[in-house]
Order: sequence, then structure tokens, then C-alpha cells
Amino acid sequence: MDKHALQAYLVPGTDPHQSEYIPEFWRRRALLTGFSGSAGDALVTMRDAGLWTDSRYYLQAERELRGTGFTLFRWGSPGVPSWEEWAVRNLKPGETLGLDPQLITHQDYAKLENRLAAKAVRLKPVAANLIDRTWKQRPPQAFGPLTVLAERYAGESVGKKLDRLRQKMAAEDADAHVLSQLDAIAWLFNIRGSDVPFNPVAIAYAIVTRKNALLFLAREKTSPRVRAALKKDVSFRSYDDFPEALHRLGQTGKRVWLDKSAVSHWVVRNLAGARFLFKPSPVYLAKAVKNPTEIRGAKQAHRRDGAAMVTFLWWLEKAVPKGGVTELSAARKLEEIRKGQPRFKGLSFRTISAYGSHGAIVHYAVTRETDIPLQPKGIYLVDSGSQYLDATTDITRTVCLGQPAAEQRDRFTRVLKGVINLTRTSFPQGTSGPQLDVLARQALWDRGLNYGHGTGHGIGAFLNVHEGPQGISPARGFGISLEPGMILSIEPGCYKRGDYGLRLENLALVVRDPGRSCKTATFFKFETLTLCPIELRLVDKALLAEDEIAWLNAYHLRVRKELTPLLGKVPAAWLKKATRPI
Amino acid sequence: MDKHALQAYLVPGTDPHQSEYIPEFWRRRALLTGFSGSAGDALVTMRDAGLWTDSRYYLQAERELRGTGFTLFRWGSPGVPSWEEWAVRNLKPGETLGLDPQLITHQDYAKLENRLAAKAVRLKPVAANLIDRTWKQRPPQAFGPLTVLAERYAGESVGKKLDRLRQKMAAEDADAHVLSQLDAIAWLFNIRGSDVPFNPVAIAYAIVTRKNALLFLAREKTSPRVRAALKKDVSFRSYDDFPEALHRLGQTGKRVWLDKSAVSHWVVRNLAGARFLFKPSPVYLAKAVKNPTEIRGAKQAHRRDGAAMVTFLWWLEKAVPKGGVTELSAARKLEEIRKGQPRFKGLSFRTISAYGSHGAIVHYAVTRETDIPLQPKGIYLVDSGSQYLDATTDITRTVCLGQPAAEQRDRFTRVLKGVINLTRTSFPQGTSGPQLDVLARQALWDRGLNYGHGTGHGIGAFLNVHEGPQGISPARGFGISLEPGMILSIEPGCYKRGDYGLRLENLALVVRDPGRSCKTATFFKFETLTLCPIELRLVDKALLAEDEIAWLNAYHLRVRKELTPLLGKVPAAWLKKATRPI
Repeated sequence: MDKHALQAYLVPGTDPHQSEYIPEFWRRRALLTGFSGSAGDALVTMRDAGLWTDSRYYLQAERELRGTGFTLFRWGSPGVPSWEEWAVRNLKPGETLGLDPQLITHQDYAKLENRLAAKAVRLKPVAANLIDRTWKQRPPQAFGPLTVLAERYAGESVGKKLDRLRQKMAAEDADAHVLSQLDAIAWLFNIRGSDVPFNPVAIAYAIVTRKNALLFLAREKTSPRVRAALKKDVSFRSYDDFPEALHRLGQTGKRVWLDKSAVSHWVVRNLAGARFLFKPSPVYLAKAVKNPTEIRGAKQAHRRDGAAMVTFLWWLEKAVPKGGVTELSAARKLEEIRKGQPRFKGLSFRTISAYGSHGAIVHYAVTRETDIPLQPKGIYLVDSGSQYLDATTDITRTVCLGQPAAEQRDRFTRVLKGVINLTRTSFPQGTSGPQLDVLARQALWDRGLNYGHGTGHGIGAFLNVHEGPQGISPARGFGISLEPGMILSIEPGCYKRGDYGLRLENLALVVRDPGRSCKTATFFKFETLTLCPIELRLVDKALLAEDEIAWLNAYHLRVRKELTPLLGKVPAAWLKKATRPI
Repeated sequence: MDKHALQAYLVPGTDPHQSEYIPEFWRRRALLTGFSGSAGDALVTMRDAGLWTDSRYYLQAERELRGTGFTLFRWGSPGVPSWEEWAVRNLKPGETLGLDPQLITHQDYAKLENRLAAKAVRLKPVAANLIDRTWKQRPPQAFGPLTVLAERYAGESVGKKLDRLRQKMAAEDADAHVLSQLDAIAWLFNIRGSDVPFNPVAIAYAIVTRKNALLFLAREKTSPRVRAALKKDVSFRSYDDFPEALHRLGQTGKRVWLDKSAVSHWVVRNLAGARFLFKPSPVYLAKAVKNPTEIRGAKQAHRRDGAAMVTFLWWLEKAVPKGGVTELSAARKLEEIRKGQPRFKGLSFRTISAYGSHGAIVHYAVTRETDIPLQPKGIYLVDSGSQYLDATTDITRTVCLGQPAAEQRDRFTRVLKGVINLTRTSFPQGTSGPQLDVLARQALWDRGLNYGHGTGHGIGAFLNVHEGPQGISPARGFGISLEPGMILSIEPGCYKRGDYGLRLENLALVVRDPGRSCKTATFFKFETLTLCPIELRLVDKALLAEDEIAWLNAYHLRVRKELTPLLGKVPAAWLKKATRPI
């Protein structure tokens, strides 16, 4: 920092593609701070060092930051400044904050520059990342192999996807569109990679013009077979040639469509000379609205995944009383069962296998150090998912391993009421997720309870487990209308710190609601995709309205009917009991 | 337009203060188009002329625009472009769109400039308004008298309000704060004027520095008495001196705090040389959170206003069968009753007195031409409010003048369910209005019904009937946490075009919810201010849950208890019947 005349240096948790899950090669913030969560930024000054993360990671960060010298700032807690606010307050006029321009979106860069300018603090992009210089034993860059996803899974050819994109570009008078989000690129080119844990994406950039589609990938990734499959629509370039291609594009003075909340400031700097259209990429919305093939795939995959979950829950009920089951071994068992399912391609995120008080750590990642045995008492929470060739799954179930306390039943039933009330609502065309979020919370608010995370996120089709632009939360997905074909999670929870955690998560597909639509109004509703019993030992029937009981019984009947044919006799008998009408 | 080399000219519905209700002197869009609604912008090109307005005014605009040559664009309807989109699509590269820079916020100007630039269309501020040049018989500028609101009504002295503002300015390193919103200025300086219909504001600008508070007003407005009352805190300047004062402030290079969504582009241009802090004004939030004096005033005024409403509804029930009551005469009767109340200072907006199919016109303004008699059948909707020295009121009641149809009872009961469910919800600190909006809609959505307006708006204390920053709607109030002391309307509705309209509106105060708050969590709830019976003939008890019936009966009991002492014997007997338990 001294050498670059910086009084502060930002180490964001992201990578040049603004990914959520990032390859080891780019995990600079984790290296610097020791905090391994998926969301969090670090800011180092000559006097202080801070780490900012959100409520999912408060407890984990407390633990991991102990003794590191980094102060934990709890994002979203009342009175806690964001790092931007902290920087504005604590840096002095004339001081300089440095950062790697690849690790901040253009939008955030512009905002930050503006805010710091008000205090006469300079923002300085430093091309060479300061962490990399001191990084001994840096893991190698990811060169995982890449495959082309067959059209029988993708449901639409690359040519047709590019046509749709180019129509949007023509309507906006855009000559080129630059993409850096890995899942957007994977979707557009029907490619799947293995560079990033849990996300089947390949590290790449893309530039789509009216006539050409340039895909920038490390040469090692593309076999002749892959090239042959895509050559009609795609021109392959080396990953390292991307900045030079941006330069050349910029010098043409052409109009380039960029999503400034997705591409890095570095991309925009390299495009100097271009005219810009800053607008969300049409690829995101196209990707979010699943096509009929993807929807069919999702329904089939959820049957397989549900059967795996039932097998696991059946096994768990038998195994825990015998002893020897731990959080880690349970997670491994679940993975093993899933591996036996057709089209399985890996987990969609690290399984949250959380017993007792660990359940209150919203994104608890079990390690050898934290692993504890499951006993025939208390609450076990398991949030997990798979990548299948035909879909991505994400499911949370809470299991009662002994006798539930009245408080636990009360709270779990309120969480369930949230799932029911959000799932069965109809809503008019034009409604966005944030408008619906309260429906999952109201039964908890009624008792002065709440949860600190969003209610739902979009999910990819054999792609990232978290995707936008839609979402159901007080903050995310604002202004994005829910449309038929979108898939969202519905996952309210309730957490008692140091004691237990309760969460239920189903994925649901947005479909047209013919019963409520008419000539002048179109209504949509949710169709639940996830098939797995809900822990009846934690349900307090007295708290449910009659129509809520009817919903639960109908859901369980459907689960039983759809999954029984996929199960052996003994797990099927267990399922029958687990889905009995109440 | 030719003389200024313009191919298009924008005529916004607003005035230099971005007011909702504007004095005749500035009603240029109404003059040009004939459309008299409070929201709507016109755009004229050499080839076309369009008028854009929102769903409240679709029907009124259709009627008023007939034969004018203006095409009606229905804002917010699917597929209808905004005027910005329309301009981008229809203007050609090289063409110029002109506008009066006083009639567009700085934020909208910057966005528009950006969007037009993409199409190589120029945006040109034209200082002299083109409508004014052709305006024969223009009404005179408003020089209504101005009064100082006593501290026993305002609850806080101007000195203290300025202190609070200056503390915020110091925290943001702002040297000056410029205000152009009339209600913000009225609140800050405890002045009330008579320049604008229904809004007790005075046409003014203000510049607050760390040491000085300059108030720019037409000299005619300020009596020696007013000056004496404020001279300790305020320096008076002529309204016409404002641009010159901005020039001088800009030349100092000082840091000026502006809300770019409130001040016009003209203000920013005149401040050339200043450093800017663009951020919402702290005055808005301070104004929105009512102080204990204002809250006490609101509660008292709502008793008086409720008594007036009950007297009116009692009279209506008797008078309609006798014949001779029309929409206009009913509105006049209601005004006359309100005039008899202590501290009455005028109506807070033009009464919506709508019988039968007129009720489906959300902001129906009865005129001599549209006036119709009320008959002892069908539905009558009355949305009205008063300015009192101690509060502003706004209430809607729907009255059944004969035998209700089953459909009307079903829909009204769903509207009522919306009021009940939103009113009785508790919500954690940090919740914003848009998160709660769905609670007022869900019972309607359940039957494929909806309403095209927001659910609630903020309201002033003897100030504007609509004020921000808080709001309950899918779009307004986003990111503004509801706080104790805020007052909002709760007003769902249901409209059958050409047939009838149903709406219920109560004002509610946000208060702390002690029963649901604990050490680690703070919850808020609503306390209803409006006191007036809800039409029981339109309530279908079978549609209400037991706790909803209990809410309704408890509300009616409170209305009866609080209003009976203010009523004569006969209206009190009527009230008893109107508030009978169901």
C-alpha cells in the first residue's frame, strides 16, 4: 500500500466475474482475513482492518476472525456502517483508497468514487492485485474441462438464443453486448464447465455482436469436439485476449450494451471510446424464464431428488438412535444417496448439515472442527441440493430427532404457515417478489419473530443455485415481475441463537392461474416442484387454519403418490407414515 | 417550437416546485390539453401530440381529451410506453426535444438526457416557457396571505427544526441545503399559506446555511407581524431573488445538499460552481415523523372530522329517498358540516362524491356537467378530507343506498379484509410500506380482483394530503422504513368499470408494539386514527374470519364511544345502529 501511495485498500470477496462461488485461485479475501463465507468484503487501512458480512455469516465470521486483527462489521444490523460509509467517515481528505478494478462492478465503482469525492478522498484503480503479490502457494488457475449441454436438456439451440439476444440488441440500437457473468455465458452458449465449486460454469467472457459471438476461454478447456459442436454460432478466443478485444471494440466507437451492475469497472475502462448502453442484460431474464424442456427436466429431477431425500430421512431416523451419525457423516450419506440418482452431476452447494445450535447459523458449513454427533433428541436442519443434467435442486427440511418442545412446534408451524401462505397465493401479472415476501413472514411477525435472510431466490437449470434477476425478499428482485417459467425458492425460517434453527424450503414454478385470469386481468400462481415430507412432529395442528391443514394434506398426498414408485418397499412404508393426513 | 428549432416540446403537469396541486397560474398542461387531472404530462411533436396519465385518471382523460387531437397514453398499462420511451422511439437522430428546466427534476433531466443521447436526440432547456407566450387571460400569480403556525399546533419551534437540520448538514459536511418543495418549506418555517388549492402552503424557496436561513417569498405575502415572529431565525428575501442567490452560492464553491428527485434542473444549473451532495432532504423524514403535539392534534381532529362524517352519513340516509340530492349537493353539504367544526381551515382536496358508475373513476371530480342525482339504490362513494389547524384528514366511505347485490357485498368485504389485515399486522423495525402492500390486496387477488392505485400515502399535519417519503404501494416508499409517528392512509378499493366503485380509507399512525418487542427486536404496529362507521349493509359476515369480525366490532365500538359525545341525539342514535356488533 505504501508503494502505491494508498492509505486504504479494498479486498472484495468476489472475482473478476462478480461470482458468488469463486475458484480457490481468486479467494483473496479468504486468504487475507481467514473468513471463508461466500459473502464479505475486507477493507484495510494503515490504522484499521475490517471485514463486512451479512447476517447469514455473523456467527461464522465471529469465530473465524477471532485473533486476526480484523474487526467484524455486521452488514444490515442497525447502526452498523457499510464499508463505504465507514470509508467516508474514517478516511481523511487527500487520502487514497486503492482497489483492483476487476473486483468491483462499474456501478459500484461510480457510486464509490462519488461518495469519496465528497470527502476529497481519491479512488485509485490498481491494476496489479496487492494480495496476489504476497500469495505463496497460490492454487492453480482453473482449467476444468467443458462440455456442451445437449439440446434435449437445454431446450433451445445456441443459434436461437443468439437470435433472441440480437433482436433485443437491434431494438436498443446496440452493436455489441459484453457478458462477464459466468452463468449467463454458460446459458447462452449451452456450455457447462467445472471451474467453480458447485456451479457448473466455465471461466469465460463473451462479446456478442450483430454478426459474431466471441467466447473467451482458456484454450485448455475446449476440446475439438466442443469446438465442432459450437462452430456454426461461436468464434473461440483465448481468455487472455479479452482486454485487447475490448480495446479494439472501444476504438470502433460502437454502441456497447453493458449491465453496469454486473460487469467490472475494468471492462468499462478497457472499452474506452465506445458509446455505452447501460441496461440489465436481456440474457438474465431469458435465462430466468425456463423453457418447456427445462420445466419438464425440473419436474423429473425433483422426483429423483425427492426420492433421494426420502431415502436419507428414512435412513436418518433409523441410524441416529444407533449412534455414530455426525453432521459430516450425515451430509456424506445424503451425497452418496444422491450420487445414485440418474443424471447426477454433483452438489449444487455445500450441504448445510446442522444439528442443535448449529442450525441457528443460517449458512453453517460443517468442518471437521465443528462436527458434532446427532443424538436422538433436538432439531436437525439439512439444506442441500444437486446438480442434475436436467435441473438444479435446493431443498431444506428440518427434522425432529426426539420430543419437540412446545416453542419449537409453535415456531415451526409458523414457518410452515409462511410456506403455505406464500405458495398458495395468486398474484396479478406485474407483481414482483418483494411484494410477496411478507406472506412468508406474517405468522412469525405475529409473535414478534422474524428471519434475517430473504425468502426466495431464483435458481438455474443445471446452473447456479442462486440466480437473478427475480427474488422474494425485502430488497432483492425489486421491479422484476414474476413470470411463468421462473423458478424460485420459498424458504422462511426461524432461529434461536445458541439453541436451534428451523427452516423449510421448497422450489416453486410460476405458472398462469387460469381460474383467476380473465379477459382484462392475468393472474399467476406457484406450483411446488420440491417433493419431500414436512416434519409432522413439529406441526402444531391447532395453529393451522382448516385450509392450511388441507394444503398440507394435499401436498403430502402428492409427495406420496409421486415418490412411492421410485422407492423400495421399506422407505415407501416410511414415506406413507411421514405423509399421513393430519 | 420552430423558432427554437425544436422538433418536440414537453409540457409537464407540474410547476417549478414539483407540486402535485398547482396554482392556476402554472396549470400549463391543463391549458394546452384540456385534461384537468392532477397527474399527467403532455408531449407535442411536429407530427403528434400525446397526454400521459395514470390509472386514476384514465376515464377522466378519455372524456376530456375527446376531440383535442391529443392521444391518451395510459401510464402503467401493459405495453403502453412512457413518454420517455415514446420520445426515444419516435424522435429521429439529430432532432431536439425542448423543455422548461424549471418543470423537471434534476434527476429526471439527467436520465432523460442519457436516454435521448443513445438515439442522438438532443435535450434543450428553453428558459422561456412556450405555453406562457400564447397564454391569453393568464390567471394572476398567487399572492395569498401567509400566517405563522403557533407552536401549540406545530409542536416544535423553527429554531429547533433548523438546529436539527444543521446537525444533519454538519454530519454530511454540507454548507448549504436548498429546498424547493412547498410543504417542506412550510413545515420547516412553521408557515402556512393559501397559494395552492387544498394545500396550505406558500410559494417559496429556501436556502439554509450553517448560520443563515433564507426564505424567498413574494414581498406581498409577509406582513410585519409574520416577519417579527420569524426574524430571530429567518432572513426574508424576494421570491425573484432566488436565482441570483443560487448564482452567488454556486460561485463560493461550497458544498450544497440537494435532493435531485425534488429540485428542478434549473436550480442545479443556477448553482454552477458549487460542489453537490445529492441526497434526499432530511426535512422530508423529519416532517413525516409527527411529534407528540402533532399526534395529539391528529387524534383530536379525527374525532371532529369523524363527527362531521357521521352527521353527513346520517343526513344522507334521510335525504336521498326524499330526492334532490346530487353528487355536487352532497359534497357541498359535507363541506358545510365540516365548516362548522372548530379549527376548520378548508378541504384537504376536492371531494370525490361519486354515485354509481362514477365510483369506478378513481379520482372522479364532479362538475356541473357530470353531476347526477343520488337515488335510493346503488352505491355512493365519498372520499374527502379537511384541513384543520391541528391536522389534515382524508377518509373514504362507501355507502349502500338500496339493496346491495351479492357481488357488491363479496367485493366490499374483500376490501374490508384488506383494511383489517393491513391495519392489524405487526412488523419489525426496518420494514417499508411496499413490503406490506400485499396485505391489503390478497383477499381481492384470491378472486382475480385488484386495484390500480397504491394502498397508502403519507399525510401532512395541517399540510399536504399526500406527502412522502413513506408510502404503501408496490412502487412508492421503497427503502423508507416505517417509523413511529408516521401517518399513512390505508385505502384498498375495487372498481367495476361502468357500474360501481368500492373503497375504504382510514388513516393510521405507526406506533411501537410493546407486546411484540423484546430486547433484541423492535416491532411496530398501526393505530387507526379515522373514526367513522363502515357500511355494514355491504359486509358479508360469512366471508370474515372470527378474528376479522372481532376487529370490526371493536373498531365500531371505539367509533361509537369516541364520537357519541360530539353528536346530537338523533345522529347518535343513527351511529349506534351503524356501529352495531355483527
